[in-house]
Amino acid sequence: MTARRVVAFGGGHGLSASLRALRHCAPELDLDITAVVTVGDDGGSSGRLRAERGGLPPGDLRQALVALAGDHPATRRSAGLFQHRFAAVPVGVPRSGATDRSPAAGDDPDRDGAAPRGTDGASAGTDGLTGHAVGNLVLCGLMELLGDPVAALEHAGAMLGAVGRVLPMSRQPVGIEARVRGVDPAAPDEVRTVSGQHQVAVTTGRVESLRLTPSAPPACAEAIEAIRAADWLIFGPGSWYTSVLPHLLVPQLADAIVSTSARRLVTLNLAAEKETLGLSVADHLAALHWYLPELKVDLVLADAKAVGDPEPVERAAESLGARLVLAPVAVVDGTPRHDPAALGAALVPVLGADR
Amino acid sequence: MTARRVVAFGGGHGLSASLRALRHCAPELDLDITAVVTVGDDGGSSGRLRAERGGLPPGDLRQALVALAGDHPATRRSAGLFQHRFAAVPVGVPRSGATDRSPAAGDDPDRDGAAPRGTDGASAGTDGLTGHAVGNLVLCGLMELLGDPVAALEHAGAMLGAVGRVLPMSRQPVGIEARVRGVDPAAPDEVRTVSGQHQVAVTTGRVESLRLTPSAPPACAEAIEAIRAADWLIFGPGSWYTSVLPHLLVPQLADAIVSTSARRLVTLNLAAEKETLGLSVADHLAALHWYLPELKVDLVLADAKAVGDPEPVERAAESLGARLVLAPVAVVDGTPRHDPAALGAALVPVLGADR
Repeated sequence: MTARRVVAFGGGHGLSASLRALRHCAPELDLDITAVVTVGDDGGSSGRLRAERGGLPPGDLRQALVALAGDHPATRRSAGLFQHRFAAVPVGVPRSGATDRSPAAGDDPDRDGAAPRGTDGASAGTDGLTGHAVGNLVLCGLMELLGDPVAALEHAGAMLGAVGRVLPMSRQPVGIEARVRGVDPAAPDEVRTVSGQHQVAVTTGRVESLRLTPSAPPACAEAIEAIRAADWLIFGPGSWYTSVLPHLLVPQLADAIVSTSARRLVTLNLAAEKETLGLSVADHLAALHWYLPELKVDLVLADAKAVGDPEPVERAAESLGARLVLAPVAVVDGTPRHDPAALGAALVPVLGADR
Repeated sequence: MTARRVVAFGGGHGLSASLRALRHCAPELDLDITAVVTVGDDGGSSGRLRAERGGLPPGDLRQALVALAGDHPATRRSAGLFQHRFAAVPVGVPRSGATDRSPAAGDDPDRDGAAPRGTDGASAGTDGLTGHAVGNLVLCGLMELLGDPVAALEHAGAMLGAVGRVLPMSRQPVGIEARVRGVDPAAPDEVRTVSGQHQVAVTTGRVESLRLTPSAPPACAEAIEAIRAADWLIFGPGSWYTSVLPHLLVPQLADAIVSTSARRLVTLNLAAEKETLGLSVADHLAALHWYLPELKVDLVLADAKAVGDPEPVERAAESLGARLVLAPVAVVDGTPRHDPAALGAALVPVLGADR
């Protein structure tokens, strides 16, 4: 039997969880994994690199590569290197003329958009490297050197012994804009335009509509090809507005997604994020339908505890043509994170089932 | 027969030439190559990283790694990535508030000390990455992540499929200071102290004495071990004061160099550099004797054309206990650079000879 070709869509932590889960079932199911990654990030290290050097924001691409990194000790160490984030300049080695300031790097090496910093990247107490993950700089260098993000990602994947392929949804960076109600808690009914993935991701208002800038970015040709050849497409988990839905807003990707013969799986989130406060689990599915009405889904995978009453979710799934599958896929410590082994175990019977 | 263990000392371009030559004879002679690299650089990308982040200056270490990088297309591409230097921010992607300025990066990706730049690394037209070689950032990240430069170099060597090992002469960065006569052409007899490897390397005065700061840095233990186990030690080619002689000024290295049972080869330069203007070929050998009087040398390898009249060089070699070997080792275009294949061909009978 030939390998099952799986394409996972997302960006950031959610896609990492999906890819780590797929790795768990890869040997059993002989999976051929392709990650298709959003290119809208404009925060943190990625945002600085994008603004200053003009290529794709590398952070979400890096996280997907690291999630697929090989198990050999050397490739694990290279993955650690990719994730290593340059902190503020060490104590005892002040930059000349620098005055003290708290470190600008975030504590979570995965959180590219979370590190608060000045706009110039070289404030007192920091140097030009502070806050950058090494892998972001490697990807940025490879994109400059090879002149093409797909070639750069292929080489970076080889450096990490990646057990799959990482592709950008577009070879061009995109912007994300949302119309948001109640951005300002003092004016809960006012609707404002919020620009930039980072700002949309952290808004506590209610996102009413979403768009990309440019509104129809060209899709990465290799991603279209992977979707056409796929046996399964997997959407989510992840930040719904900033990591999952953007894929449906790239017209050529949307076309390929609805026209492929691949089956389609949606993995739901375990908890609402800032950007999806007020959005029920069923609403997440409704949003998929809203932004791509032609989308038909075969299966929706969710955690029973996160879903609560399954009935509205079942109905929302049915409206997409999908059956709801409940499985315990969260980590056991109660935090709303997917456990890769548990999610992988839940995916085995799903992805392994004959049509 | 067991492998011939060769330890090559230097830093920068000269060491690269030596290592590339050794690679040419490695298959024929079954060589086990170790490079021991100076850690005094304070110019360019390396100098900025050293000043701002406090680790070893990575540039010379990077060049040695790249010289030993494997021949596989993927490792060649990784070597290209290590050498890729971030240019000024691309046209059309100005940093906010930035005004035009000429690019700060040098044209020669190998020349770590040659890129003129401001002291803060983030001037108008540049960002925090401008001028840095990707490999310098990778080494800097690995040293931070693994906490030890030898472990960092081992991992970087694996990333490049290196056919040998690169070690720093010391785990601590050192300073280089020289007493130089005629720094100011208007005062040709005045002797001044010139501080910093970069300043010593570019001085056009005459270096009268050289020292390290601290004066007795601890040697890298693995380098001492490699010297003790070696069959051959190779000094030069390279910047005599800033890349070759510093090794003899590290007391523990000097002890190991004079007490090992390894044979010792000196490869002479093809032309004087700024720092050695006025120093004859024979003077180069005399300088080795001056800084390490106990040093005995077996062979001195030089290019006949560069030597001119061989007699004074022969005498200088003899005073070190060495025989002079003349061979055509320069590139054929007339520039004073060693041709790795020609130097390698000259090394085969030398390193392959029984004692």
